[in-house]
Amino acid sequence: MKKLIVQKFGGTSVATVERLQHVMKTVIKARKTGVDVVVVLSAMAGETDRLIELAQSAAENPNLREYDVIVSTGEVISTAVLSILLNANHHPAKSLTGPQAGIKTDELHQKAHIEEIDTSIIRKELAAGVIPVIAGFQGVNPKGDVATLGRGGSDTTAVAIAAALKADECQIYTDVDGVYTSDPRVVPAARRLDNVTLEEMLEMASQGAKVLQNRAVRFAGKYKVPLRVLSSFKEGPGTLITYEEISMEKPVVTGIAFNRSEAKLTIFGLPDKAGIASEILGPIADANIDVDMILQNPDSKDLFNFTFTVHRDDYTRALDILKKVAESLNARKVTGNNKIAKVSVIGVGMRTHAGVGKTLFATLGQEGIPVQLVSTSEIKVSVVIDEKYLELAARSLHTAYGLDGDMQEEFDPIRITK
Amino acid sequence: MKKLIVQKFGGTSVATVERLQHVMKTVIKARKTGVDVVVVLSAMAGETDRLIELAQSAAENPNLREYDVIVSTGEVISTAVLSILLNANHHPAKSLTGPQAGIKTDELHQKAHIEEIDTSIIRKELAAGVIPVIAGFQGVNPKGDVATLGRGGSDTTAVAIAAALKADECQIYTDVDGVYTSDPRVVPAARRLDNVTLEEMLEMASQGAKVLQNRAVRFAGKYKVPLRVLSSFKEGPGTLITYEEISMEKPVVTGIAFNRSEAKLTIFGLPDKAGIASEILGPIADANIDVDMILQNPDSKDLFNFTFTVHRDDYTRALDILKKVAESLNARKVTGNNKIAKVSVIGVGMRTHAGVGKTLFATLGQEGIPVQLVSTSEIKVSVVIDEKYLELAARSLHTAYGLDGDMQEEFDPIRITK
Repeated sequence: MKKLIVQKFGGTSVATVERLQHVMKTVIKARKTGVDVVVVLSAMAGETDRLIELAQSAAENPNLREYDVIVSTGEVISTAVLSILLNANHHPAKSLTGPQAGIKTDELHQKAHIEEIDTSIIRKELAAGVIPVIAGFQGVNPKGDVATLGRGGSDTTAVAIAAALKADECQIYTDVDGVYTSDPRVVPAARRLDNVTLEEMLEMASQGAKVLQNRAVRFAGKYKVPLRVLSSFKEGPGTLITYEEISMEKPVVTGIAFNRSEAKLTIFGLPDKAGIASEILGPIADANIDVDMILQNPDSKDLFNFTFTVHRDDYTRALDILKKVAESLNARKVTGNNKIAKVSVIGVGMRTHAGVGKTLFATLGQEGIPVQLVSTSEIKVSVVIDEKYLELAARSLHTAYGLDGDMQEEFDPIRITK
Repeated sequence: MKKLIVQKFGGTSVATVERLQHVMKTVIKARKTGVDVVVVLSAMAGETDRLIELAQSAAENPNLREYDVIVSTGEVISTAVLSILLNANHHPAKSLTGPQAGIKTDELHQKAHIEEIDTSIIRKELAAGVIPVIAGFQGVNPKGDVATLGRGGSDTTAVAIAAALKADECQIYTDVDGVYTSDPRVVPAARRLDNVTLEEMLEMASQGAKVLQNRAVRFAGKYKVPLRVLSSFKEGPGTLITYEEISMEKPVVTGIAFNRSEAKLTIFGLPDKAGIASEILGPIADANIDVDMILQNPDSKDLFNFTFTVHRDDYTRALDILKKVAESLNARKVTGNNKIAKVSVIGVGMRTHAGVGKTLFATLGQEGIPVQLVSTSEIKVSVVIDEKYLELAARSLHTAYGLDGDMQEEFDPIRITK
């Protein structure tokens, strides 16, 4: 049987008609190797923001059904433009909206989930030698209305289609040419990884190395879709996300991820009674604020302190809530810090190797970087440090774990040709 | 049974969110009188041009299916914005694309014809107390693809929906507050007509007084849809298009229409042989050039001259074709003139009254305006004159036929509030 690949292009790759011409060439090149190609696109850069702004200029809280109608047109347009380009270059292609492509979602507008894909339409077009060009980020809900999947949903669309079609590979074309051991803008010695396990990828992404939407990566994992991250602008093999550890010789640590997107809050002098954590985190959750790290430690006899981190955007709201909570619980005081950074050491090899934590603390100690919080999982160790030490910490850990490659002098993570 | 009206808004009426707020008020006002309302919208001003340009920037002759996908998003967005506004103001509303609204067309992309409307969806929404806000200018073709009706198609959509729903009235909101006896920018004494017959409206429109698309007016006539032209910007009764002569006392002449959009071509010294007209007009028709007036008159013994008018945009192409035809027919010479104007005197009363032509020629003669061509129909007499006499001719004929009202000092045909 003919091989089938799904190619997804988003962001700056589809920013203009000129960029879409480059996408067209990539698609044609793949077709010429004899494989069938299904294309999934995001909206042309800036278009989604423009449409959201339009919807919100009509009402502060626009009707969600209608919001989705407006926002979903962005992808419809980019798919039709690419189809025009492909047809004009003698490669029959047809744009399909999410609903037309048989992508069925639940009822949640703005953040719908794909529930089912009726692949008959896509298969019919492929059988007729037509390249289906599918609008990402959208589907049809049980009411027959268009529903959007939320930001970054185009990656999920591509993975879901690849899973439904049992594609041989799902290629996600991005601004970067693969997954790196760390962010090359901060760690010049960072290297591209030829492959990375799904779990590492998930940790990297959730720790700030945003290459793919986590939702898409999880979806890929569920259906074991062979997923490859490539650059739209630079030829190369990219990074393949694998579902098994490819080599026993794999290094213990695969990468160093970090972010500056969290803030830390502490409530001091709490009575040690059962269920008190829920009295603190309940109002935070009610305000739709996600909590990442949590730490509880003794303050004095019978009293303790409670520390947690939230997204930096939620810092002020969380602090206000925490002050009220402190009052009602008779706590001593509340402090907060939004100038923190989180650095994570990630690797599936960690499971079978001790000593990762030891290297971590030794390295940070040598550099004189105090650790404020620690959290661990099977395949990562994260620390919260003062934001000012972020670059130093990332670079010294990258070296300490033997990840350094040649300096990436030429690296330009957002390689936009003017 | 509850009364039902269809309200169509286009052009500058839907140019911005602010304008659409005004549309919202007009819709709510109608609903408050206890009638059901179905809304049809054009794209926000400038949007269709932007989308056409985008499609054409991808390929000189873009794939027509994909062209329609792109261009049809304009109306989808405006209907969703209005629905957001209506919902935010506690009037449940739902945007429907042409395909969603059950508008079925033939296969012609870019200029599809409506073949059938499945009104069940619209009726279901009305029964649920929801205002259906329908995207004009589009429908779904037998292949299941979106197809656009061509420029001005939104008027046709509104009329077709009104016909299918047997609406009590189809209200077309435009930049002007009705149909006038002549263009008030040229004839300050022009008056708004309370009503006009369908045939007069068709003649007025085809003679250059573009208020409604002719296709929409013809469609209304076929199904006897009560059609009213109103201003989106100024309250008033507008002009009702009627299907019977309302009053026996109706004046002989209803209005003076004119345009500068034609050009005249003449081929001299043709042999008088059968079928020669088709040898001239055949190549013109093959080039998709429409011919309006045609005149044949003797040149000398056994020879004659042949004159016709075409749209001014087609003038150069028509002249080139005619020169080749002249050569092959051994004609003496070819001349052309694109500085002409056509003035038409229109009125259903003409059928039963003589003397309309007499007044026409007497008036133009008194003003010293030479008549170059004449054509007549049951309800109009048109003359072609030198363009420089256009305003003089229009005003003197308006007076001669007793059409003058008070001077329209305040008239502003495009009343856009800044």
